Amino acid sequence: MERLDPTVTNPDAYSVVFENDRVRVLEYHDAPGHRTTPHAHPDSVMVTLSSFRRRLGSGTHEVEVELPSGVARWIGAQQHYGENIGDTETHCLFVELKDVGGTRDGQLGPAEH
Amino acid sequence: MERLDPTVTNPDAYSVVFENDRVRVLEYHDAPGHRTTPHAHPDSVMVTLSSFRRRLGSGTHEVEVELPSGVARWIGAQQHYGENIGDTETHCLFVELKDVGGTRDGQLGPAEH
Repeated sequence: MERLDPTVTNPDAYSVVFENDRVRVLEYHDAPGHRTTPHAHPDSVMVTLSSFRRRLGSGTHEVEVELPSGVARWIGAQQHYGENIGDTETHCLFVELKDVGGTRDGQLGPAEH
Repeated sequence: MERLDPTVTNPDAYSVVFENDRVRVLEYHDAPGHRTTPHAHPDSVMVTLSSFRRRLGSGTHEVEVELPSGVARWIGAQQHYGENIGDTETHCLFVELKDVGGTRDGQLGPAEH
């Protein structure tokens, strides 16, 4: 795989919770001011375990997102970097889907169209 | 589909957060003493949003599980009922996988083998 695996690009923030043949579950944890390098997500469901405010950028445009704890969002396959622009830690889980194919409906961050 | 959809069998506890062509995300919420009727889960990832203690039964055997808040567990496709046997609410999300196939590795509850 040539994609930028976030557990390789940003191992300080991303760790593997478990993996099987259908999913890989990642845990993300950072502190205010933290910024990741660019990395790629396959089609995923993100579940927030804290409230947070972040800037997500793809190189061509940026979006700011603010989410409460305990919500789920669809993250269509995309490459981006993320910056914690709030005053709380960011803590969330990603359920990465392994099967080929996917949608971009309702995705949260910037996508490479 | 002939499976026992938990949003149909137990709409008091299960609701749909969102759905697309790859996943359906359910929210589960109950109070101590609550017991569901039998229902079916496809291969899913459960993320706990509260700590809880539950009894899961398949008709042939039962298991008790106790989990903290903020963890992810693989739920291999299975049919069961669940009972809140703790003294806290159960609050969690299910990321149901729509694609065919699946594994039973590391599943949490009782399975029909």
